[in-house]
Amino acid sequence: MERADIGLIGLAVMGQNLALNMNDHSFKVVVYNRTATTTDKFLNGPAKNTTISGAYSLAELVVTLKKPRIVMLMVKAGAVVDNLIKQLLPHLETGDIIIDGGNSLYKDTQRRTKALSEQGIRFIGTGISGGEAGARFGPSIMPGGNPTAWMEVKPILQAIAAQVDGEPCCQWVGENGAGHYVKMVHNGIEYGDMQLIAEAYHLLREGLKLPVEELSPVFAQWNQGVLESYLIEITSQILKVTVEDGSLLVDKILDTAGQKGTGKWAGIDALDLGVPLTLITEAVFARCLSSLKTERMKSALLLTSDKKTFVGDIKTAIAAIHDALYASKIISYTQGYMLMREAAREYSWNLSYGDIALMWRGGCIIRSQFLNKIKQAFDNKPELESLLLDNFFATEIKKAEAGWRKTVMLGVQLGIPTPAFSSALAFYDGYRSEYLPANLLQAQRDYFGAHTYERVDKPRGQFFHTNWTGQGGQVSSTIYEV
Amino acid sequence: MERADIGLIGLAVMGQNLALNMNDHSFKVVVYNRTATTTDKFLNGPAKNTTISGAYSLAELVVTLKKPRIVMLMVKAGAVVDNLIKQLLPHLETGDIIIDGGNSLYKDTQRRTKALSEQGIRFIGTGISGGEAGARFGPSIMPGGNPTAWMEVKPILQAIAAQVDGEPCCQWVGENGAGHYVKMVHNGIEYGDMQLIAEAYHLLREGLKLPVEELSPVFAQWNQGVLESYLIEITSQILKVTVEDGSLLVDKILDTAGQKGTGKWAGIDALDLGVPLTLITEAVFARCLSSLKTERMKSALLLTSDKKTFVGDIKTAIAAIHDALYASKIISYTQGYMLMREAAREYSWNLSYGDIALMWRGGCIIRSQFLNKIKQAFDNKPELESLLLDNFFATEIKKAEAGWRKTVMLGVQLGIPTPAFSSALAFYDGYRSEYLPANLLQAQRDYFGAHTYERVDKPRGQFFHTNWTGQGGQVSSTIYEV
Repeated sequence: MERADIGLIGLAVMGQNLALNMNDHSFKVVVYNRTATTTDKFLNGPAKNTTISGAYSLAELVVTLKKPRIVMLMVKAGAVVDNLIKQLLPHLETGDIIIDGGNSLYKDTQRRTKALSEQGIRFIGTGISGGEAGARFGPSIMPGGNPTAWMEVKPILQAIAAQVDGEPCCQWVGENGAGHYVKMVHNGIEYGDMQLIAEAYHLLREGLKLPVEELSPVFAQWNQGVLESYLIEITSQILKVTVEDGSLLVDKILDTAGQKGTGKWAGIDALDLGVPLTLITEAVFARCLSSLKTERMKSALLLTSDKKTFVGDIKTAIAAIHDALYASKIISYTQGYMLMREAAREYSWNLSYGDIALMWRGGCIIRSQFLNKIKQAFDNKPELESLLLDNFFATEIKKAEAGWRKTVMLGVQLGIPTPAFSSALAFYDGYRSEYLPANLLQAQRDYFGAHTYERVDKPRGQFFHTNWTGQGGQVSSTIYEV
Repeated sequence: MERADIGLIGLAVMGQNLALNMNDHSFKVVVYNRTATTTDKFLNGPAKNTTISGAYSLAELVVTLKKPRIVMLMVKAGAVVDNLIKQLLPHLETGDIIIDGGNSLYKDTQRRTKALSEQGIRFIGTGISGGEAGARFGPSIMPGGNPTAWMEVKPILQAIAAQVDGEPCCQWVGENGAGHYVKMVHNGIEYGDMQLIAEAYHLLREGLKLPVEELSPVFAQWNQGVLESYLIEITSQILKVTVEDGSLLVDKILDTAGQKGTGKWAGIDALDLGVPLTLITEAVFARCLSSLKTERMKSALLLTSDKKTFVGDIKTAIAAIHDALYASKIISYTQGYMLMREAAREYSWNLSYGDIALMWRGGCIIRSQFLNKIKQAFDNKPELESLLLDNFFATEIKKAEAGWRKTVMLGVQLGIPTPAFSSALAFYDGYRSEYLPANLLQAQRDYFGAHTYERVDKPRGQFFHTNWTGQGGQVSSTIYEV
């Protein structure tokens, strides 16, 4: 019997579709699932008439593989992955490879890469985005881990990935947890993109009172320009779907969104690393607020105010909302890239920021034309500190600036919340401010806690303390250096 | 020799001042420091002519104490605390008490309370706020941990705490990590309050171009009204301090603020628990952004725009900024209390929200009249879901609303960032919205990931999926319930 190229464990929908995708690309796959009936159902159903075969124990799975063996886990992130690795180890040999294709936290991937490496096993932790359809026909794949394993798994992963302009949306990200880190940032950006669209929709619908039948065309039109992306496209489609009584299906959907997954991790990591990831964090918090439906209903009755109505030219207002979305999106990606840059410093990863944009260009939920521009920005200057310091993005955001400000003011006037638009604008105005009022903060901290401060007229690294009240302890008002 | 009431370990400035404070209140204190010379310096210096005595080993310290012994640690949070506990244990007996008065993460306090309880030792983890001066003359003290230990340490801790209207700013918070949790939220609120003042100052200074000599009087006047608080008071004092050339000292201070401590923990925990703590998180991120001084200086040259000038009545604008600060402060405390409420649910703490306000009324950095109103709100209704649902705060925020909106628009027009003001307003408008556009988010999630949704016209807990494109996998468009 011909040995298989790869063993795949876990036959939930993602696992099944990846196996079928690999089969399409002429790789011989053997699959294993904890519940044997699931394996049988798959083999007799979707995998019928393919070369996919089944194994009914881990021992059987491993024995069926070419060496070095490649075993891919498509199981729930967390303890399940650790347990499976433990069970697999006795069957593997030095040099064999385990791939974790689940939504694992990058810290777990860091730990596993190290622990397995000490046992001679090469570990790959890879983010995979694109949902069901992506897994079946070409997802975005973000692999990290043990670099010597990359050459072995590259032919399979690049073959099954989405292809854009002849390039696979799968490139080596970096050592240990880098792949899952980039996937985490991807998910955060996805939260941000969705929130931006929701705010635009809210303003169009409740602010401008656009008739329902005009909503879908606005997004369809936006999808022809700089906002062209999968999420704008499906928004335009969603806003066409009606129910029996002719009203929009979206109006029947409860306005509470969950957030339990990887979206919040990006915000947590940004706080930990000290990176101002404001937009994505506001997007996560907006979901949290949406879930407080009962409290919101109570508060809507108590915290009433005069309803203001939009007055002005509808077309101009729609164009301004478009610009607000575009400018805010530039901010969101700027912040996401700032986070990756800081993480690369912290964890000594040599991230190729252009390749990351390339990987996201196809296959995944945030795929868009916009990512080509990011790729170009990093092609022009691989060491680019910030997207806002790239000439293209600087020009674009300045063009969008007036409409963005108008849109935020519109929301403020009409009482329609735009947490992501306005947080992005505050970031922009702060980022381009040579001066910020943090000097007052430092004065306060020195006042109440003798935390010291640096001075604008002295070199960095010299710290000063003032006895602000003329009273207080032994610490004198003299200058001292640390 | 008379046995001591309490042993205190760690003679940095907080430890020294707490020992002197205890001595003032007739408690006999024995102190220990790892470096003996520090102990000697303290005994021969600030502690001269007190009843404070020194010990030069942990064994000696413990042997000097009344039973059950009370040993208080005033050392750096983290591993140092664990090491000291380990070294102390052989010297202690069942029922003895260890107090950790440092800035420990509440999760560490949860772990330590449990582990020590299993060894018969009672642990108290307490937040202490007020800096040097507070420690010396009356801090705010937030104790949690082992409830049976509270009765033993209560006389000491309540005696040395700040007193307001005859009540000590020290009340039992709750089991295990509750005290340190409340301290963490306190620190987050402190970040928020400082950021709000900085934004007001920025608008007055750069937006309204108020002459420097008029800045301090504005804050002094604000300190006579609803904003009366320690931080407003010291801001008014800071803005009076000039240097040799007659300019404000604050203008010589570098505008980069650090954030490494407990401020970010509140944001991280909020993300973990799914509570929209937007204002404090924006305040933490604003510090992160301020620290990118070099990048800001570059970007200020590239991302220029026409400078707008303020046109209008200065007095009206100042009043509006006052209202923005006040309304945003109500939002910040509302969010902080939401976080504590969720944490209480998560960790089964029975928090007394009124007592928490009482503890913060004096001694600490965020002390203010405002906290009396919070105390009253919870006295009126201990089960109050949200400060915004209290009649007093609802009325106050509605009064401030118009000025708040004007102020946010002013910042947007002039390009002066107000991340906390505008994030607070977005939260307010979201919180009082019966409808939010999260229904579109749910439609998107169902479109690309078959995540399902609930419907407004069906009971909660029924989940639906739509085959939005009419294409796709086996999952049909029929209704299914989970």
